[in-house]
Amino acid sequence: MGVVIPLEDKNKYTASVKPLVELTRSDMERVNQLILSKAGSDVAMIPEVANHLISSGGKRLRPMLTLASAGMFGYEGDHHIKLATSVEFMHTATLLHDDVVDESDLRRGKSTARMIWGNQASVLVGDFLLGQAFRMMVEVGSLEALDVLSGAAAIIAEGEVLQLSVSKNMETTEDDYLSVIRAKTAALFSAAAEVGPIIAGASKAERDALRSYGTNLGLAFQLVDDVLDYNGHAQNLGKNVGDDFREGKITLPVVLSYRRGTDADRAFWRSAIEEGGNDDKALEKALGLITKSNALSDTIIRAEHYGAVARDALAPMAETKAKSALLEVIDFCISRIN
Amino acid sequence: MGVVIPLEDKNKYTASVKPLVELTRSDMERVNQLILSKAGSDVAMIPEVANHLISSGGKRLRPMLTLASAGMFGYEGDHHIKLATSVEFMHTATLLHDDVVDESDLRRGKSTARMIWGNQASVLVGDFLLGQAFRMMVEVGSLEALDVLSGAAAIIAEGEVLQLSVSKNMETTEDDYLSVIRAKTAALFSAAAEVGPIIAGASKAERDALRSYGTNLGLAFQLVDDVLDYNGHAQNLGKNVGDDFREGKITLPVVLSYRRGTDADRAFWRSAIEEGGNDDKALEKALGLITKSNALSDTIIRAEHYGAVARDALAPMAETKAKSALLEVIDFCISRIN
Repeated sequence: MGVVIPLEDKNKYTASVKPLVELTRSDMERVNQLILSKAGSDVAMIPEVANHLISSGGKRLRPMLTLASAGMFGYEGDHHIKLATSVEFMHTATLLHDDVVDESDLRRGKSTARMIWGNQASVLVGDFLLGQAFRMMVEVGSLEALDVLSGAAAIIAEGEVLQLSVSKNMETTEDDYLSVIRAKTAALFSAAAEVGPIIAGASKAERDALRSYGTNLGLAFQLVDDVLDYNGHAQNLGKNVGDDFREGKITLPVVLSYRRGTDADRAFWRSAIEEGGNDDKALEKALGLITKSNALSDTIIRAEHYGAVARDALAPMAETKAKSALLEVIDFCISRIN
Repeated sequence: MGVVIPLEDKNKYTASVKPLVELTRSDMERVNQLILSKAGSDVAMIPEVANHLISSGGKRLRPMLTLASAGMFGYEGDHHIKLATSVEFMHTATLLHDDVVDESDLRRGKSTARMIWGNQASVLVGDFLLGQAFRMMVEVGSLEALDVLSGAAAIIAEGEVLQLSVSKNMETTEDDYLSVIRAKTAALFSAAAEVGPIIAGASKAERDALRSYGTNLGLAFQLVDDVLDYNGHAQNLGKNVGDDFREGKITLPVVLSYRRGTDADRAFWRSAIEEGGNDDKALEKALGLITKSNALSDTIIRAEHYGAVARDALAPMAETKAKSALLEVIDFCISRIN
């Protein structure tokens, strides 16, 4: 299935996360060490479950944001390592709880922890990682960073509950859906980017800029993820095409396709999403409706919009390697579509 | 079924939580207000689930410990209200997650949240309350209090996982079991009592005293709870007699009865705990073995031991109304057995 990618700028196709990876390489080695050490416990099941997820090949985009955003303002201490690790633990805890809530079997092509160790271990190891994340933040000792990260934790959880309450509801508007992903995805990107300038002692304007960058990058990232679920390849994606649909999950492509459809189209969506249990034939039909309504290409246009906001947020900042790497990540997130 | 209560001191039968309730009454009104306000959210399911559990008639012993332990050292600010509320939220979050992990149907005689709203809402609202708890602690701004409470959060979660990994294992020793309840119950009592002297600016010796008091009170409290499960009345207890047994949960009465039993007794316990699905006939048999082995009365003697340690922890402290109320709570916890 082809999607018309509405990118004017051909460079975006070659945008890469590499400059960010290079920039943060030595710090990320320390983060990875700290992850292994803080996921350790005499209770053997904890490192087993944690390492399963931690080693499952995520890009660790969020901790890299923290490292780069601290480096952008010349930070030279050690606190960014602990904060970056905290951010990754918060993310990992969320994934563990999400898989339980969504009853997911696969994540990034591997069995989810809950399939191997059960829902119980997934809930509790998630709680443990969250506890360790808070301990590390407290060790850093910045009340401002604590405020931002604990605020994000509460907002993420609120967003997850909100998602639960809009789930199966086909009357969900684009704005409703944006509220969900603003909380459940963008809040952590935002906090990850904001704590860098905080510990670097940057100005309020600089904090605000990085927070806005993080929020909008997170929105773009999530919208592209939504598209990939209908347009990706299982081996790249680590999940099967159509997983969201099979689970009856409402994402922006579904919202747009439903709202733009005929009465018959809408009846199909209502039954597919509200009743669930969708097979390959239903997925084929859904893909047809999504194509007909331009829902994927328009979701990408929405992602481009948030990407542009993220880019302008950083515009007044001094030109540094970190800034340039963070800007390229915006295009990289959107170019994952190819 | 009768249990020989090995109490020399008749006063213990009349020990009451009332002095603590009286002492903290006006502060607890503020705590209750804050609970309602911080459990509020535009996402309707959050206050519904939270209020179900919060209003289900728990004694709120933990926040009262925080209030009294702050008052004991002459604290006159406002921070104890937020910390007490944080402690209650941490406790409530743990209950929500526990009910999911234990697949419990009833708590304090009411349907558990997971039975009404599902496991998903229970996991996520628990996460939300934990997030709110951290936000309130951060607002208080004491890094020492944050250190104690975030440490407790990680230890509690670690204890829950440990419990999961010892569950169904009849070779669990008394020490193993103590490690579990030290983490999953005593750590929060301990933190609740320690943050009082911290915000009151008390000395290290005073902090240490209250921490030790909290830890040992928590251990005594949990051991008595274990006894009540085999010896209580559903209407007082809010759970049915034998719930722990039916779920195949290992508690100290089971550990003692198993270790003191004949080969045949041990074979019964192994099959009952490892295979689960225990009916009333099995419960009757278990109660018989527990009586034969004096496991309940000896569990109470163990609880008395920890109660005595808690009492001595406070011994050097100045005589105040708060101290006297906290001491009486030790006897009250143990006298719940009658």
